[in-house]
Amino acid sequence: MPRVFSYQEFETGSEKVRQYADKHSPVIMCDSEAVRNMPFRVKVKIGKNVKHPNAPDHHYEYIQLWNLETLVGEAKIQRSSFGDDPVHIEADFLLIPKISLRLTAVAYCNKHGLWRSEELFVPIKDE
Amino acid sequence: MPRVFSYQEFETGSEKVRQYADKHSPVIMCDSEAVRNMPFRVKVKIGKNVKHPNAPDHHYEYIQLWNLETLVGEAKIQRSSFGDDPVHIEADFLLIPKISLRLTAVAYCNKHGLWRSEELFVPIKDE
Amino acid sequence: MPRVFSYQEFETGSEKVRQYADKHSPVIMCDSEAVRNMPFRVKVKIGKNVKHPNAPDHHYEYIQLWNLETLVGEAKIQRSSFGDDPVHIEADFLLIPKISLRLTAVAYCNKHGLWRSEELFVPIKDE
Amino acid sequence: MPRVFSYQEFETGSEKVRQYADKHSPVIMCDSEAVRNMPFRVKVKIGKNVKHPNAPDHHYEYIQLWNLETLVGEAKIQRSSFGDDPVHIEADFLLIPKISLRLTAVAYCNKHGLWRSEELFVPIKDE
Repeated sequence: MPRVFSYQEFETGSEKVRQYADKHSPVIMCDSEAVRNMPFRVKVKIGKNVKHPNAPDHHYEYIQLWNLETLVGEAKIQRSSFGDDPVHIEADFLLIPKISLRLTAVAYCNKHGLWRSEELFVPIKDE
Repeated sequence: MPRVFSYQEFETGSEKVRQYADKHSPVIMCDSEAVRNMPFRVKVKIGKNVKHPNAPDHHYEYIQLWNLETLVGEAKIQRSSFGDDPVHIEADFLLIPKISLRLTAVAYCNKHGLWRSEELFVPIKDE
Repeated sequence: MPRVFSYQEFETGSEKVRQYADKHSPVIMCDSEAVRNMPFRVKVKIGKNVKHPNAPDHHYEYIQLWNLETLVGEAKIQRSSFGDDPVHIEADFLLIPKISLRLTAVAYCNKHGLWRSEELFVPIKDE
Repeated sequence: MPRVFSYQEFETGSEKVRQYADKHSPVIMCDSEAVRNMPFRVKVKIGKNVKHPNAPDHHYEYIQLWNLETLVGEAKIQRSSFGDDPVHIEADFLLIPKISLRLTAVAYCNKHGLWRSEELFVPIKDE
């Protein structure tokens, strides 16, 4: 099974190690609460502070969004659409939730493998 | 080669035919102009007025965004994330363009095949 | 809509043009007849005679197999799995058909766009 | 992070539990040795003995093949291509290896999540 890396494993490392981990780690951004049966938007950004290279031999290939064991969305990343400079890749997802969410983003870099975000709990309320 | 359907082929049909075509047709929504080397957001929505069923045996599987002959993004649609009622599926794409764009969205319904949007020209300006 | 190229458009061209078209064109290889409800294997090979580059900035990304308007399989091509030399990419598909097939393969090169095979009719027989 | 299940976690369970695990588990089938720079074929089959349902609301969506941390292939599973009866889904992959392989297959069932095979070591030899 491929290892799945996360920022947390590296955060006690040197500045260089933390930058390496930061630029590979997906971060989930969304409202802190969802409304039942209403569209709920989730953004996933790769790298909180450090941009990832976007070179022909070193780039992100896909970002998946999971709700516990269920795949709720996947964005295929087309490298050339982001130019040739380091970049914060982003992908946007839309869900219509019925119950509370436990979201994790998983993203794949062709050179440094699978990276996951922290799990984010999103409670649901009725309107 | 699979046929690629578009709303235009059906727009002179009956109300029922036009509704069938509308609920299958991807529509591109974005600013009318992009800025060179700056993030440019494109939303693709399936169905301008009529919602598409989102049933286990009749649902959208993916939405691709093309710039002329180049694939610039693909969103895999996870049916269960959108509930069990008819819905306007949406996917958001992010590009960092260097030159003007000629965008087309192509989307695949597991029951009624490939559908494309109209081509949209987006001129580019320098900031 | 992205143009979909085929070998036939180029076959009256110069030797160079024909080689360009050959190395981009998917070719379907399978038995000439299928048996109802029995596994049926289809191979798609890119390039009948000429190998396609497999370079970081020029490679195939996916191969789809269509039966008329229905997507029956898709293989995502991971460039690095095929080394760094020109290569005949291949993908294998498995179907369990109920009725006769009209197969087309469609493949995407990140530099030269979408290419399709000829349509292949596969009659079905009962065992 | 979605849990990744494997047959080994369930093999001491009841007959019913073992059947549940068997029909979800990808199994890698290939030669025990690869030749450097020569095509190497790998088959992944879901379920060694028990067939998985292939129903509109319970089916496999994709099979990935990993070599340690590197994704070496992905097959998208089109449910309708396999009929409406329980089935052993299969996907075939082609690699041109330079060094020894440590392969794992990972497959996603839309109802019961991610499942992985055992890791398989494939030594490489020169011809």
